[in-house]
This record gives sequence, C-alpha cells and structure tokens, in this order.
Amino acid sequence: MFYSDGKLQYPVVVEKPDPLFARALQQAIGGVEGEIRVCMQYFFQAMGARGNPKFRDLLLNTATEEIGHIEMLATAVALNLEGAPVGLKDEIADDPIASSVLGGTNLKNFLSAGMSAMPVDSDGVPFDMSHVYASGNIAADMTANIAAESTGRVLAVRLYNMTTDPGMKDMLQFLIARDTMHQNQWMAALEELGGPTGAFPIPNSHPQAEEKQEFSYSFFSHLLNGEPPTGRWSTGPSVDGKGEFSVVNSEPMGQKPVLPPARPRGGAQAEQI
Amino acid sequence: MFYSDGKLQYPVVVEKPDPLFARALQQAIGGVEGEIRVCMQYFFQAMGARGNPKFRDLLLNTATEEIGHIEMLATAVALNLEGAPVGLKDEIADDPIASSVLGGTNLKNFLSAGMSAMPVDSDGVPFDMSHVYASGNIAADMTANIAAESTGRVLAVRLYNMTTDPGMKDMLQFLIARDTMHQNQWMAALEELGGPTGAFPIPNSHPQAEEKQEFSYSFFSHLLNGEPPTGRWSTGPSVDGKGEFSVVNSEPMGQKPVLPPARPRGGAQAEQI
Amino acid sequence: MFYSDGKLQYPVVVEKPDPLFARALQQAIGGVEGEIRVCMQYFFQAMGARGNPKFRDLLLNTATEEIGHIEMLATAVALNLEGAPVGLKDEIADDPIASSVLGGTNLKNFLSAGMSAMPVDSDGVPFDMSHVYASGNIAADMTANIAAESTGRVLAVRLYNMTTDPGMKDMLQFLIARDTMHQNQWMAALEELGGPTGAFPIPNSHPQAEEKQEFSYSFFSHLLNGEPPTGRWSTGPSVDGKGEFSVVNSEPMGQKPVLPPARPRGGAQAEQI
Amino acid sequence: MFYSDGKLQYPVVVEKPDPLFARALQQAIGGVEGEIRVCMQYFFQAMGARGNPKFRDLLLNTATEEIGHIEMLATAVALNLEGAPVGLKDEIADDPIASSVLGGTNLKNFLSAGMSAMPVDSDGVPFDMSHVYASGNIAADMTANIAAESTGRVLAVRLYNMTTDPGMKDMLQFLIARDTMHQNQWMAALEELGGPTGAFPIPNSHPQAEEKQEFSYSFFSHLLNGEPPTGRWSTGPSVDGKGEFSVVNSEPMGQKPVLPPARPRGGAQAEQI
Amino acid sequence: MFYSDGKLQYPVVVEKPDPLFARALQQAIGGVEGEIRVCMQYFFQAMGARGNPKFRDLLLNTATEEIGHIEMLATAVALNLEGAPVGLKDEIADDPIASSVLGGTNLKNFLSAGMSAMPVDSDGVPFDMSHVYASGNIAADMTANIAAESTGRVLAVRLYNMTTDPGMKDMLQFLIARDTMHQNQWMAALEELGGPTGAFPIPNSHPQAEEKQEFSYSFFSHLLNGEPPTGRWSTGPSVDGKGEFSVVNSEPMGQKPVLPPARPRGGAQAEQI
Amino acid sequence: MFYSDGKLQYPVVVEKPDPLFARALQQAIGGVEGEIRVCMQYFFQAMGARGNPKFRDLLLNTATEEIGHIEMLATAVALNLEGAPVGLKDEIADDPIASSVLGGTNLKNFLSAGMSAMPVDSDGVPFDMSHVYASGNIAADMTANIAAESTGRVLAVRLYNMTTDPGMKDMLQFLIARDTMHQNQWMAALEELGGPTGAFPIPNSHPQAEEKQEFSYSFFSHLLNGEPPTGRWSTGPSVDGKGEFSVVNSEPMGQKPVLPPARPRGGAQAEQI
Repeated sequence: MFYSDGKLQYPVVVEKPDPLFARALQQAIGGVEGEIRVCMQYFFQAMGARGNPKFRDLLLNTATEEIGHIEMLATAVALNLEGAPVGLKDEIADDPIASSVLGGTNLKNFLSAGMSAMPVDSDGVPFDMSHVYASGNIAADMTANIAAESTGRVLAVRLYNMTTDPGMKDMLQFLIARDTMHQNQWMAALEELGGPTGAFPIPNSHPQAEEKQEFSYSFFSHLLNGEPPTGRWSTGPSVDGKGEFSVVNSEPMGQKPVLPPARPRGGAQAEQI
Repeated sequence: MFYSDGKLQYPVVVEKPDPLFARALQQAIGGVEGEIRVCMQYFFQAMGARGNPKFRDLLLNTATEEIGHIEMLATAVALNLEGAPVGLKDEIADDPIASSVLGGTNLKNFLSAGMSAMPVDSDGVPFDMSHVYASGNIAADMTANIAAESTGRVLAVRLYNMTTDPGMKDMLQFLIARDTMHQNQWMAALEELGGPTGAFPIPNSHPQAEEKQEFSYSFFSHLLNGEPPTGRWSTGPSVDGKGEFSVVNSEPMGQKPVLPPARPRGGAQAEQI
Repeated sequence: MFYSDGKLQYPVVVEKPDPLFARALQQAIGGVEGEIRVCMQYFFQAMGARGNPKFRDLLLNTATEEIGHIEMLATAVALNLEGAPVGLKDEIADDPIASSVLGGTNLKNFLSAGMSAMPVDSDGVPFDMSHVYASGNIAADMTANIAAESTGRVLAVRLYNMTTDPGMKDMLQFLIARDTMHQNQWMAALEELGGPTGAFPIPNSHPQAEEKQEFSYSFFSHLLNGEPPTGRWSTGPSVDGKGEFSVVNSEPMGQKPVLPPARPRGGAQAEQI
Repeated sequence: MFYSDGKLQYPVVVEKPDPLFARALQQAIGGVEGEIRVCMQYFFQAMGARGNPKFRDLLLNTATEEIGHIEMLATAVALNLEGAPVGLKDEIADDPIASSVLGGTNLKNFLSAGMSAMPVDSDGVPFDMSHVYASGNIAADMTANIAAESTGRVLAVRLYNMTTDPGMKDMLQFLIARDTMHQNQWMAALEELGGPTGAFPIPNSHPQAEEKQEFSYSFFSHLLNGEPPTGRWSTGPSVDGKGEFSVVNSEPMGQKPVLPPARPRGGAQAEQI
Repeated sequence: MFYSDGKLQYPVVVEKPDPLFARALQQAIGGVEGEIRVCMQYFFQAMGARGNPKFRDLLLNTATEEIGHIEMLATAVALNLEGAPVGLKDEIADDPIASSVLGGTNLKNFLSAGMSAMPVDSDGVPFDMSHVYASGNIAADMTANIAAESTGRVLAVRLYNMTTDPGMKDMLQFLIARDTMHQNQWMAALEELGGPTGAFPIPNSHPQAEEKQEFSYSFFSHLLNGEPPTGRWSTGPSVDGKGEFSVVNSEPMGQKPVLPPARPRGGAQAEQI
Repeated sequence: MFYSDGKLQYPVVVEKPDPLFARALQQAIGGVEGEIRVCMQYFFQAMGARGNPKFRDLLLNTATEEIGHIEMLATAVALNLEGAPVGLKDEIADDPIASSVLGGTNLKNFLSAGMSAMPVDSDGVPFDMSHVYASGNIAADMTANIAAESTGRVLAVRLYNMTTDPGMKDMLQFLIARDTMHQNQWMAALEELGGPTGAFPIPNSHPQAEEKQEFSYSFFSHLLNGEPPTGRWSTGPSVDGKGEFSVVNSEPMGQKPVLPPARPRGGAQAEQI
C-alpha cells in the first residue's frame, strides 16, 4: 500500500519559463528512458520477484521513489509552459520567436492538457507499457535496470546541457545524482547475485550442457571482404569464465527452406496449392 | 550493403508440428525480447556509433547475424503451423483437442498470414520499433544489449523447456548458445570501454562535480514501518569506485507545488481562472 | 446502412490559410478527444446496445452526424495547408517565419498525405481504436459520452481561441454548439436511465449486498502528515442516495505478499528456485 | 513524494489457482478500464490541477490508493498462475483441459514474465498512456473519472461473476465497493463544481454568446425513412438549464468541398495538377 | 454529410452461435485487412482528392458502403457471442469444450464490451489509424485500394471456409462478391488514370530525367552463391513501357560511412568525443 | 543467412547539414511508406512464400537490397543533424532561425539517439510492424508491394523537391530510380501470376460460384440527391474479364438488427436484462 505527503522530493523552481524545454522534459516523463518507465518497471519486477525477499523490497522501494520523480518533472513541465504563446494568433503572427515556440511545442500539452504535463515523450508519443521489462528472472531484471538508468542518466545530462535556467539545472543535478546511485545500486544487486561469473549466462539455472557449446563463445563473422573487428570478445577467456572466445567465419549449416504447398481452401492463389 | 544466400544459419527441423508452439515461438520473433528487436537495435546502434570504428563493425556484424535468426524462427513457425486445424468447423466441433488448439493460436497467423510467421509476439501484438534502444552513448548501448540478450536467453530457455520436439530442441540449443556468446560479447565490449569503474556512471563524460554528489551514493528509504533492505548497495564503496554507499530515510526537500491560475481563454472552468 | 450527399453539414471557409492551425485542427480529427473517436464510440455502442431500442437509434443517429464533422474538419485542414512552405528550401532558408512554419507542422501532412488531413493528432500520432469505449452497459456508455463531449468542447474552445480567421471561428462556433447539445443529450439519456440515484452505482444490476459495503462510501486517506481534503465527498448522504460518506485513515488490511519459489525449468536464476 | 509499507490494502487469497482467471484479471490491471489507467489519470490530473487546491489533494490521494489496487491485482495474477501447465509438452499432450488452459492464457505471462503479472490487458495488449485523460479542465476531468469508475466497476462485476474462488470473490467485493465510492466521490466533486446547471456546458468559462446558439439544443436527425428517437433529449428544458431541446431534420448547410489542384512538384499525378 | 436508415445492407443470420468464429470475424472488423480500414482509407482519400472530382465521389461513395459492412460484421460478432460460456466457472470447469471456447476467445469481447463487437482484430489488438493510406496521389491511392481489397477478399474467403453456419456463409458470400467488385473498381479507376504505361512510375509528374535512369530498370542481385531468380522482371521491356529490364550483380558504390566525433556535452562516453 | 560489407550501396554526401531535412528523411526510414516497412514486408512475404520458389528468391533478394537503403538513409539523417543547435540555450535564445530549427526537429533524435537516426517517422512516431503485409497469397502480396513502392516513390519525390543539397538530391535520384524498378518488378511478378484476368479476383482459388455473383460487378450508389460517378467502373466488361459492370442504387436488403437482452449477471444495467 502507498502513501503520499503531497510535497516534492526536491525543490522544483523555474526562473524563466521555456516552452521548448517543457517539450524536452516530456522525454524524461514519458520517453522510453523516462521516469514512468523505471517506476513501473521496478514495480512490476517487485510484483514478480521470487526468491530472497530483499530484492522485492529493494525494487518496491525504488519504484516508490520514482513516482516522486514523475511528480517533480510534471511540475517542471507545467511551470515551463507558463507564458507560452497560445492566445489569439494576432499577437504572434509577426513574431518569429513566438511562432517558432508555438510550432516547436507538443501541441497536445496545450490542446489536450491545458498547459500541463502528459505521459508522452518529447514528440508527443504516449508511453506504452510494453517497455516495462520484468522477466521473472531477477538477474535479467537487474541488467534491464542498469540499462534503464544508463540511458536515463544520458537523457538527464542532455537536458541539463540544454538549459541555462538555474532552477532547472539544480533539479537536474539532483536527478543525475539519483541516476548515479541507481546505476550503482543495480550493479551492486547483480554483484550480490554472483556478478559476471556467477549470474551469467543468464539464466544461470539452465544446464549449459544442453546448449550447443561449440557455438557458445564463438564470434561469427558475417562481414564480407573485410577483417572481423577484434577486441576483448575475440580471444581469451569469456567474461563469464566458462569458455574461451574464438572467431569463426560464419557459414550456413542449414539448407534453403521450402514450405509445403498451401492448403486448397486457405486463401492462396491456385498456383500455390 | 547486405547479401544473402537463402540458406539457414542452422538447420530447422520440425518432427511433429505443434500450432501452440508456433504461437510461443512468435514471441522470439516479434516479442520485445525477440530477434527483430536485437537485430534492429544493433543495426541502429551501428548507424549512430561515433568514436572507435570497431564498435560500429561489431554491432553491424551481429545485427547481420540476427537477421538470420529471424529467418530460422520464421521457418520454424511456418513448419509448426502445418497440420493446424483451420478447415471446416465440422471436423473439429466435437474434438476438444482441436478446438483448444484453434482457440490457442494467434488467429492472425491463419487469417492474415496464411499459416506463416508474422512480426508479432505470442499474443499477436505487432512489434513496435520504440524498443530499439540506440542512445548514441556506446556504453549505454552495451548495457541495453546485455539486457536484451539476458531476457532473450531466458525466453529461449523457456521455449526449450516447453517442447519435446527433437528438431525444435536442437534449434533452440543453438540459439541459446548464441545468446550465451552475445551476453559475453557485449560484456566484453563494456569491459573494453572501462568496465564498472571506467565506464560508469554512464555517461562518463559528464563531470560529476556538476551533480548533487551528496545524493549520488545514498539509498533513499521510502518504506514506512519497516527496515530498508540491506546488501551490497547499502554500505561500502560504490561499484563505480567513486563514492561510498549509505542509507538515508527519504524526506521531502521540496514544498507542495501550486500552479498559477488557468488562463482566461484556455478552456478551464471559470473557477480555475 | 449509410448514405452520403457529399455536402458539408456546415460551411467551411478559410480566409487565410494557416499551416500551424492545420496542425492544431488535427487534434480534433485524430486526437483522443476528436471526432473519429466520438463517431466510432457511438457507432460501436449502438452495435452492442441491448434493451430499449431507442438508445441504439440515438447512438447510431449521432454517430452518423459525427462522420460529417470529420468531413468538415478534414476539409478545414486541407484548406489551411494551402500556401504552406514546402517547396525548394532556398525559398525559405533565410525566412524565419517560413522556417518556423515548416518546422511547426506535422511533416506527415506534407510527406504522407500531400497537403491533406490524416487520422492523426496534432503531434502526428495516429488515432488508435482502443479509445472507443463501448461497454455493453448503457449507463456506463453514457458517462463515457458525457466525458468525451466535455473534453471535446474544451478542445474546440481552445481551437476557437487560437485563431482569428473568421471562417474558422464560424465553423468552430457551430461545432462548439453541437458539443453543447451532445453533452446535454447524453446527460438527458442518463437521466432517462435513472440519474444518480437510479443508475448508480453502475452497473445497477449488481446486488450491493454482495460488495463490502463497509467500504462503499468511505473516503480513504492516503495522505501522510496532512488533513484529507474535505468536501461533498467526505460527509453527508452519498450522491447515489444509498449510503453515507465518511473519512477513514487508510491502513493495510493485508499482509506482505510472498510468492512461492520459481519453477525449476522456468528460466529463473538458480537462487530463485 | 511517496511511501510504501509493502503490505496489501486488502487480503489477496487464491484458494484454487486458475490461469484462465489470471488472464481475465489482467484486464483489471492493464485494460483501458483498469487500475493503471485510473491511477495515472488521477495522478496527471493532480499534476495539472489549477484553482482550489483541494481538488489536487483529492486526486493525488485517490491516485495513491489506486497504486495499491494494482499491487493487489498483480499479486492475484501471480497466485492464479501457480500450477499452470507450462512444463514439458508431454505432460499435457493428451490432456484437453491442460491444452485448453495453456492455449487460453496470455503466453507472455509465461514467456516474458515468468508466471507473473504484466501491464497488459486480458488479450496481452500493453497499456498505452494515451488513455490518461487529464484535460486541465477540472470538471471535464471529473466526467472522465466518473466514466472510468463506471466501466471499472462493470469490469469488476464481470470478473466477480466469472469466478467461484472464495478468496477472489472476497477481493473483488472489496474492489467493487471502492468503485462504488469512487463513482460517488467524483460525482460529489462535480456537484461541488456546480453540477449540471453550474458546470455545464463544459468548459463553463466559454461565453455561450460566441457559439451558434440556434444549434446548441437541437437534436439533428440523420435517420432516413424513420422517426427520430424521442426522450428526455428531444423536448423540454435542456439538462444544463440554458436552453430548450428540439428536434430538427438535418440538412446540409455547406456545399460540396473542392480542393485546389495539387502543387506541380508535390508528388501528385500529372492529372491532378 | 451522412445519413443512416438503421437497416443492414444484407441480412445477417447466425443459426448456431460460435464464439470462436466471433473472434475470427473480429479480424474483418478491426484487422489491418478489415472494414474499418477500407472505410477510413477511402474516406480520407476522398478528403484529399484533388483533380477530377469524380474520383472524390467514387471514394466517398464506397467509404459510405463500407460503414455498412462494419455494421453487418459487428452484428455478426454479437450474435455469435450469444451462448458463450462466461457465467460461473463451476459450470464449465469439467467441460473441456467450454474451457477451450472460453480460452479461445478475445476476453475483451466479454470483459470490456459485454458480448459485443469491438474495433479490434482477432487477437484483441485495437485497430490503429496509421493503416489509412491516403497519399494525395490518386494513382498511388488506387494501388493501395487494390491491395486492401485483395487482402480483404483473402480474409473473407478464409472466414468463409472456417464456418459451416449457413447464415454466416451467406453473409460472407455477399461480402466476397463486394470485394470482387471493389478489386475491379479500383483497377478500373487505375485504368482511367492511364494504367501501367500511363500512370506508372507513380508519381507520373516527376520528370524521369531527374532520376538515375541507369538504375531504373535493373534487377540488382544480392544473392551470394546462387543465380538470381529470372522472370518477367529480368529481361524485356519494363511494364511501364519506359525502359528495358536487366540483371546486375549489386556492388557497393559508396564507402564505409564514418560519423564525426560526438559533441563534448552531448551525453556520449568520453572516448567518443 | 545474411552478410554485410559495411559499405553503402550508393554514396551519401551532405554538403550543408539541415536538421529539418533530417526530420523529413526520418519518414523514409520509419514512416509507413519507408524502407523498414518494405524491407520487412518482402522478408516476411519470403518467409511465407509457397509455390514456385522463384518468388521466394525474388522477395528475399529485394528485402536484402532494402536493408542497404535503411543504411543509406540512417547515414543521411546523422550527417544532416551535424551542426544542429542543441547546446546551451543562451546561444540560440535570440536567434529565431536556431529556435525554429530546434523546435522543428524530432527532439528524440537529440535526446534519445544523440544526433543519430531512429526507426521513427518524421513526427517521431515509432514504426510498428503491423504494416508488414504478408498474406500467404502471393498475388495479394504483389499488390501490397506495388502499393508500397508507389507511396514510397511519392515520398522520395517529395523529399527530393524539399532539398537543394546536391548530395541529398543525388542520393534521392538513386532511390527514386530504385523505386521505379521495384514498381515495375512487382507489376512484372503480378503479370507472371496471370495479370488482371488470371490472378483476379484475388484469391483466384476461390470458386466464384460460391459468391453472390449478382453483386460481384455492381457499383452500389450510396449518394443521395446526386448522380453516381461514372467511369470505367460503371459499364462494360469488368477488368478481371469475368463480369459486366453495372450501377445499382443501394437499398437495404437486411432488417434492423435487434440483440437479445443482456445476461442477468453480465454487468449490464438492470433495464437491459
């Protein structure tokens, strides 16, 4: 069960409203790297967490923090939309800055939401919950969370570098710091689960004897007329410590597939039957 | 530029067609953990790769391999659909197995595709390209790829354990092995990029002095009436080696937000203006 | 069965084409508050209407009117796109107004539709039919329709206040008037179905004795460190006339959920099994 | 800011797991009438609430309660999936009940989530956030909420009547009761905002003198060869108290629209230019 | 403007309700080959039709007919859902046919629509309006319409062959006949627009002198280790009469692309800058 | 299986980067007329091709070429984004051109992809794989391909006419030429399949004796108060050579549908039962 106190986790101040920046901030709310995504991802991972209950607590706890981040960003969007030109057209017709500002916003923030935040990205595309990765495998979930916080911090840094508003920079410095923690936190959890040699290959419950081990650590080259790229992945012990990397020129092992004729009453052309 | 030889990377044999398994295999084609996703993700990451060109080659190479995996799985779906009951209803009306098989398939595989594979998941939902994570940050991309191959191998293992068909088990043993390699390969690439202490926090180009460092390694507890979960994330040096973990009871630092009144002609109720 | 006469329900005149306004008008076609939505919603509600047939007729009739509104708006979009700058770039390179206009349009109106309307919203997102609420419960359908016409009229008013074109203002005055009627019409239908005390709680066919009536009229407060908001909802008889409002501090009645271990071959980590 | 105690608002007990019912329950999580929708809708309405702050508190409070409903339902889905047949196919091949159960589930609950809940509906379609109606008009928002709770209670009643499990019936009796309260609560809020004669037509800030009032209370009949349906909407004072209903045979007032020729270099056929 | 008489274009009779067939019929309503799609496609093509107005009339006329087809199919879905097992679970628990029927339906038809049709496909996926192809080029539109009616008739034939219900077969015989007409009608329109040699390559307004004509009629072979497929496309005059087909081994004409380094403050890793 | 050489099929040169044109080019990557669509469409058609194997080869070959077109366009997008204004806001605040450029881009190209291409359209909407038409009927597939290449060439021509950059014009001249070939190629394949009189009506395997042939070649007029549009479709032999066109005034042959009452416990209102 959840509770709220209606206050913001960290102050949100906008000194000079900037509707274009409001649009950019929408990416941090409803973008695939945004806060709705991490909030819901941690929440549903918690819902499906089996095994040691501390991971469930960890996930639920951070999901709860993230709701507050959506709250902060939604406040920031609304405050940045103050002063945006949406009044009578006459006022902006000959003003290129105003025109470009109006043209550069997600019009839905005006037309659908009355100058407020929406669960959409910076191009007005609504967030879709298929981005909630919750696999039932706790280690796979941790990799998804590291990835989410990595792209999340990249986004926050880009937003931070787009604005000169002191209030917005301050808020983003806080959110960037939280992303630093969350990257570390999920890496720490993965370490608890065994790290590269203990948790990988994920799922570690699958007996590797049942996979085609001759292909488990081979880099297949599909490049014509060129050398395959070499690096840590092409030679030496594998990162999971269970094999040796090698490079192989990929050759087809199977044949050209041929499907049987279509069924007589299956809607194909007569020639296909 | 791309080339094809029309042959399969690995043999695809179905001994006893199973339409329910065809439906399950669709998840590996058009699911968010599926092969279209990794193929397109590596492809678009290659398209945006800046810096050392070997990462571009690495990504493009593996994207090219993955097209062949879609090809294998699409063949497997079509072969598993052979023999499915879609003829005249009379033939299946009193046959509960046939009824349940028909009911248990994605009908679009019959109705839209004429007993062939589609770019949809196991519930018939089309793949949507927003799942292609390509951030322009090469390390963030690697974390996304490790996550994709982790959930991908989890899926392949689940499929492997759902079937007893020798041909299908053989094919999946190959795909599971490739996922093992790809998990290792992207971890290896991340290691080349500096690993936990060199690449993190991602992006490592952002000066940490500009984030609120007092919050960068604190676990904020949002749990009421309970102890926060402890582990590697709550004490000791951070995984990125740049801080010290601590646990903090989260308290609001901001105030209750109050938005200004609505604009007179902005479509709000009169009471809001 | 349907018929058309090819004429517009109300004149559509654009005195001075305005491509930015064309973009805004798209929200009234393909936005979630738009005309495709109400048209299809009333149509599918009619298709599932059971009971007194006059509601089916009412719904089908208004669905039929709404097709004509899409027709009007699509005409308005095409006329507003006349004169938009999409020719050779040279002509607009140094013209900030033209640049901002081009940048501020949904490019798909040019690139995909050749300067015509599309079934997309003001940010170019296609309408998706999941917004067609048709529940099979005639009273629930009426509440959905009141809501649709309320947000629809809010949108029309916002559009009306964005333009100074006399033709567009005239057309919107007509559409706003029709939304007034439709709000009233669906409220009238809800009144015929019994109004607050007869139709609610919806569905009124469910015996309230079978719900946990001790919680049926309680406002649960989830706010920490603050007073719950008071109003008509916190004290006195309930609006449906079947209970008495009260305020309760919400406390968990259930326990922490614990899921059983994962299955041995279910793709989880070994630690979860 | 938000907090959680990890406990359920109301006990969730499943006596006899039922995978088909798990699928049905998914509609209450990720369906358009489900709990994610109301939770996010109230949350974003709060974020955009302007005017009397008690509406913001009211919305935020109930959003907070709804997170706990997602938690209850996600727990119920996972518990109902226990015992579902997803092991080796041999075990179910000749068992029509098992086959039909497997066929009748959303396979993603197995394949993607490892026997856990997902933010998808009962057919496996992910929830999409465009269903979050938050208009910036507080009265329009209330109508959207009444509609959401009406379809929500209809759904809960249907689920209640689909199951005989005592634990599930008990949980649903609680949720149905909460929907009763929430229908009443939003009707109460609408009453505070003036009710039919004070709040309508929404938005009440738009001067009705600026709409085409001759069409504001007319039922336009589009039915050929038949009588228009009569009722409270066809005669007498309008529900908003500002007009008189009448019935009018709809006639086109506009002309056939003719678009100008296509532009020479706009990608049309030569005949269209 | 549009009118309706509430009657069906052709009788819809269901002798023996079949909920599985109801699910299949949903594809013809909300599938990408379905009637909503053709209806809306012709409608929006009409809205953007420039040039000879008879094409606009033709499109609007057939759009109007198609609304009636949705009406017929929605009626057929509702009638087929009569008798479906959705009551108390006890009644079906030990009945494999009933279980498989319940499992084999789109549950949303029960849970969301109360045993009625929805604008979704046979797997419950809502129709999305991006499938409305209306290009502003009248000839391109005709090719899209021929394609739509071709897949539409394929679907109708598949449905016809899935059922033995005389009423349903009769209805589908009518719809198949209409698809025959509509295929012919759009081919006829394309003939009026010049046919293969007059209308193609589409758009015919683009001066072919401005394309790289050395590649305009060459079949590029991308097949390794095999002969390119030969046929009408590999030799002889092109179908549009403006060139000669040839076969060419595809070779890269461009170089390996190299992007410049990332920007210093653009969120990339330090190594990429 | 697939191979790549990392080189571009045709040179991609951008002389003067233009971020607005980058946005427009996104339509050719991730728009419904774009290259991902044709690539995947031909690929999945190949996967489901039954009958003469040369059609499978033809489809797979051209799918392989199209991957290279995505590669070219993704390179073009990244090169056009060079120089786009996304740095500190101060630098662009008083520069209307820079403001309009920033406002006119898909912000996701900056925020999510770090100045690279994405699988989205020109308004930032991700491509969704339901646009992959692969019907299992080889002739229907060819019509879908002719349509795809027709809208594709229309788009390429519009892009060609939007830019003055010599490099971009050169690249588009190549792509326009390839679209010319592909239109011709699929028409040629349709000719091999019998052309209008042999392949149509599609599917040609359905016995026309089983359709309601009295309606197979009739133009039904649904226009009130007007003459039906006449043309090649209204009189003379049908294009498929199997009937004679005629014009008929459409009259309802069916009755008003009446659904039975709702079920007692099905969530309807009491009045509907």
